[in-house]
Amino acid sequence: MAVIEGKWTTLILRDLLSGTRRFGELRSSLSGISPKTLTDRLRDLEAQGVLTRQVFPEIPPRVEYTLTDKGRALGSVVRALAEWGAKWT
Amino acid sequence: MAVIEGKWTTLILRDLLSGTRRFGELRSSLSGISPKTLTDRLRDLEAQGVLTRQVFPEIPPRVEYTLTDKGRALGSVVRALAEWGAKWT
Repeated sequence: MAVIEGKWTTLILRDLLSGTRRFGELRSSLSGISPKTLTDRLRDLEAQGVLTRQVFPEIPPRVEYTLTDKGRALGSVVRALAEWGAKWT
Repeated sequence: MAVIEGKWTTLILRDLLSGTRRFGELRSSLSGISPKTLTDRLRDLEAQGVLTRQVFPEIPPRVEYTLTDKGRALGSVVRALAEWGAKWT
């Protein structure tokens, strides 16, 4: 169950559920998150096989994050949480 | 979305979804959790209106935790997470 732990994880998943994102796109979408925290969370999720990280050899290097099937399957959890949040918060 | 954050929260909710529990029952069910962490998590959940805490004036005092309607509504999130966990971990 640890996959969903961590303050930002659910919000990162919500963003990636609508498609591949670059680091900068995630950072600006998640107001208040520090670059280090975002890097750590993305590394955790990559280690758990929830997303893949692709580096494009450009100057500056472009890095893109994409959910795996395992990650997309978390959509049910993120939706249930969003529905609960809409009703109860 | 912060309600589900925290390593133990989902497991505490899972236990309370099957009914009122005493502190000791939760502690023995959640192997590895420290009394302080369990106390902190229960206090967070109480502060968010997800559960109620009832103290019975006995020696030693008995303390029981029960989900509110808001707490029970998190059942959909816990079930979605358990289904995901069963398939992907």
